[in-house]
Amino acid sequence: MKHYPLHLLQLIEMFKKLPGVGTKSAERFAFQLLEWGEKERQSFAALIEGSILQLKSCEECGCLRGKEACRFCDTAARQNETLCVIASPRDAFAIESTLEYKGYYHVLGGLISPLEGVGPSHLTFDQLFTRIESLGVKEVVVALDSTVEGDATALYLKKLLSSFPLTVSRLAFGMPMGSSIDYVDGGTLARAFQGRSYF
Amino acid sequence: MKHYPLHLLQLIEMFKKLPGVGTKSAERFAFQLLEWGEKERQSFAALIEGSILQLKSCEECGCLRGKEACRFCDTAARQNETLCVIASPRDAFAIESTLEYKGYYHVLGGLISPLEGVGPSHLTFDQLFTRIESLGVKEVVVALDSTVEGDATALYLKKLLSSFPLTVSRLAFGMPMGSSIDYVDGGTLARAFQGRSYF
Repeated sequence: MKHYPLHLLQLIEMFKKLPGVGTKSAERFAFQLLEWGEKERQSFAALIEGSILQLKSCEECGCLRGKEACRFCDTAARQNETLCVIASPRDAFAIESTLEYKGYYHVLGGLISPLEGVGPSHLTFDQLFTRIESLGVKEVVVALDSTVEGDATALYLKKLLSSFPLTVSRLAFGMPMGSSIDYVDGGTLARAFQGRSYF
Repeated sequence: MKHYPLHLLQLIEMFKKLPGVGTKSAERFAFQLLEWGEKERQSFAALIEGSILQLKSCEECGCLRGKEACRFCDTAARQNETLCVIASPRDAFAIESTLEYKGYYHVLGGLISPLEGVGPSHLTFDQLFTRIESLGVKEVVVALDSTVEGDATALYLKKLLSSFPLTVSRLAFGMPMGSSIDYVDGGTLARAFQGRSYF
């Protein structure tokens, strides 16, 4: 155990709470921070503290917004026939940057995961159904992770949505762009076969 | 380019200034931070801002200290015959945790690196010579990186110290603990041969 001053230890512990940051990285971050100028450290602190007031979840869709109105709920720019179901606010930005989709979003707030104690009641399914009706949605695109939890949530969603008069789709599975067949794992390759397109 | 709210963008840019953090990691950090509670974010901000006042360089040795006196300059606990020259305050904590060394430290504040515009005048050589005389040092241990810059600085130091009546040593080079010979690179193996010990 290294005998760091208490304040430094606390700073390192805080950095360790960031995803994928272990003791070594946290130490590097803290020591790097100590080399920053006073102004830079102050603005970093201000940005972190300011995020409480400056960044909010949209009450409607659950996406992240600044002080301005939610850009994902802008009725003038959105096609209200499609709604994309995502797990976290971050996914909306990723999908938006593809320029492939112009509809609405709905953040579930997570994925069903019994092991982590997350059940359907922890997610925003009820708000989703209300929004589907109020927006007059005709297609729901399920854009969830390709993991056990993502699959479970997608399946659950598919079942629930079967009573609604709408199309439900899920993002395609297959080879990532630029990949070569011998490096793609068996599961992905199998899905790519199942979803093959005819030209 | 993702259309993040301005505040989030600024936060991401700030995280990117940490060592080894690219855009993807910075985004993960920022989104994780947004999931933290208000209290946690506030204490993180306070720790970063507080580091300006709470963590200082010791005027004597250049090591890091909290509000209390510098533990690396504690005359009661230190043997004042040896002085260990290190590049950054962080190294002192690493060496200290080995329990192998009980002498004083001296932080150079970097390594000689002409490519980065760091010459001997940017480092604390003058203070080093003053301290060697005032402490009555008999051995200087050079604990610098095993890189081109570390080697250059060690060589420069060896030359300058040759006029002082003292022993100068440098940390041993060789195989790291727990390593197997076929995984150790040629340069390291060569140094391990040169520095072999007879038993």
